[in-house]
Amino acid sequence: MKEFRIVTVSKDLIPALRSKIDHKTKPIGSLGYLEELALRIGLIQNTSNPMLRKPTIIVFAADHGIAREGVSAYPQEVTYQMVSNILKGGAAINVFCRQHGIAIQVVDSGINHEFRECKNLIDAKIGMGTENFLYKPAMNFQQAEDAIAKGAAIVEKIHRDGCNIIGFGEMGIGNTSSASVLMSVLCDIPIAECVGRGTGLDAMQVQRKMNILSKAIENHQRPPTPLDALATFGGFEIAQMCGAMLQAAELQMIVLVDGFIATTAFLVAYKINRCVLDYAIFSHQSEESGHKILLQYFNAQPVLNLNMRLGEGTGCALAYPLLQSAVTFLNEMASFESAGVSQKLD
Amino acid sequence: MKEFRIVTVSKDLIPALRSKIDHKTKPIGSLGYLEELALRIGLIQNTSNPMLRKPTIIVFAADHGIAREGVSAYPQEVTYQMVSNILKGGAAINVFCRQHGIAIQVVDSGINHEFRECKNLIDAKIGMGTENFLYKPAMNFQQAEDAIAKGAAIVEKIHRDGCNIIGFGEMGIGNTSSASVLMSVLCDIPIAECVGRGTGLDAMQVQRKMNILSKAIENHQRPPTPLDALATFGGFEIAQMCGAMLQAAELQMIVLVDGFIATTAFLVAYKINRCVLDYAIFSHQSEESGHKILLQYFNAQPVLNLNMRLGEGTGCALAYPLLQSAVTFLNEMASFESAGVSQKLD
Repeated sequence: MKEFRIVTVSKDLIPALRSKIDHKTKPIGSLGYLEELALRIGLIQNTSNPMLRKPTIIVFAADHGIAREGVSAYPQEVTYQMVSNILKGGAAINVFCRQHGIAIQVVDSGINHEFRECKNLIDAKIGMGTENFLYKPAMNFQQAEDAIAKGAAIVEKIHRDGCNIIGFGEMGIGNTSSASVLMSVLCDIPIAECVGRGTGLDAMQVQRKMNILSKAIENHQRPPTPLDALATFGGFEIAQMCGAMLQAAELQMIVLVDGFIATTAFLVAYKINRCVLDYAIFSHQSEESGHKILLQYFNAQPVLNLNMRLGEGTGCALAYPLLQSAVTFLNEMASFESAGVSQKLD
Repeated sequence: MKEFRIVTVSKDLIPALRSKIDHKTKPIGSLGYLEELALRIGLIQNTSNPMLRKPTIIVFAADHGIAREGVSAYPQEVTYQMVSNILKGGAAINVFCRQHGIAIQVVDSGINHEFRECKNLIDAKIGMGTENFLYKPAMNFQQAEDAIAKGAAIVEKIHRDGCNIIGFGEMGIGNTSSASVLMSVLCDIPIAECVGRGTGLDAMQVQRKMNILSKAIENHQRPPTPLDALATFGGFEIAQMCGAMLQAAELQMIVLVDGFIATTAFLVAYKINRCVLDYAIFSHQSEESGHKILLQYFNAQPVLNLNMRLGEGTGCALAYPLLQSAVTFLNEMASFESAGVSQKLD
């Protein structure tokens, strides 16, 4: 597999950043989590004057063999239909990216559809969707490695074009099933705690989904490595996202993680190389029940908590202006000295 | 006192708005709280194509006699110094408003300072700060009524200029003390649950603040009306904000409420006319401990929860893009029909 050389983020600038934040004209600590964000972004960029350049959201899309088991509330063709919708600018992610000046890149990681002459779609197709992992591995090892390498290559190009912050989103009918199983086997958490309503299952359908996923786990040997888990239960979009996140961290970019599926892709990346966590900011807490547990697993505080469960990178797009606010207050606010404001009483 | 004629928001459009939201290309309910916001804004504006026009944040600033008791971590002159800082564009609220294209109006509601030739400052001075309510009422009845009328007049002008959404913020050393007492007497909640760290008191200083505020409550008769409470324990900025909020609701504008102090001003407004609640959106949950309880009192879900406690309207400015996202998805997203996307399976 492609090796990623991710450097740990240096903590050397903490005192300088803390001091800069604390001298701003506001009570100490009063910008709360925004101060945390400013500090983390400063450390990732190793400067006390950080900047967000050419923000980009990548939407990785693929189909899933497990969808044939009826684990989703929507039919499989919705994957390519929604990708077409995104390419035409009509999806939620388009609306929010337009609002905030964020570029969108849509990737065909393995959709069960041939797109003809679609110049806005990045062709990184690994196959026409994964196998049904209830019976056989979702993909073979070579496909998993290819997906990781292709995801990484996409990020390399975006980075070359001047971007230093990427939001990671996805689209793929059936992919909460992949994500739930990956979470369960990689974190050793019972599958029941990892399964949720997805795009809108009722309680009985969730129970059915859980039974199918339990059986799928039983039907395979326990994957000895994260890459095995990814090949056995993953999706092409999840595998590419994983490679893309690792590459973004290697390039010292901010890795802005969307919801449940993106966080599971991040989990695989983390199991491959823990240093990726230094570069991650979790944009929101999804309503998909496993996401809360997964965020706790990383001891991560999400920027937003709006009970969303849409995917596409929508959490990233909505959280982005708050990252921008963190950077902007750090760069633009007056200090007590420059504004002639009295400091705290002793 | 000036009478406010606030109409209850009609619920007639709920089915049309719900249907419009549910036909967007996303799983039903998957935009979570953003869907709530879209619905509420549509109802307030009584249209299924709402628009946010000329967003404005008003920062009401005043001084407080109670500050002489040492209830704040900062000296009183910080009020006018910070107002000067805002007028020069160096405060947090300036940075966030510039980022989101929000206009700022700064109001001298009663700062203990003479500003000379400050064309960006709205002069609505009621006095050079309130009296120390530990010993005597913070203001007299006439001042409270004047403040409400002046606050209302400011909103009327902003509305005439085409604005339909106002964020309400404040600046005033000592004003968490006013807010805590108002919350305690108007909601009948023990003062201990209403007092917090303000701009950054330590545990011992919080205890001292609590003792002073308890004594202040004992030193006055129980105020028989909300206006009595406001006059006895309020601040000029709180009173003007209260009038301004009532006026905004009368004009069917969106009332975007900032943190603890703004929510207390809203509480007084609500006790005067409950219909104001129909127009309110609570931008964030402050770290100031009483705010959580106060939000629960209104059964309100704040847009953001970033552990902030800065005031100035900063919560409004940071929440604003999410209100904009709510409106924008409602107006711009494709529907299942228009995008040719398959709907949910039965």
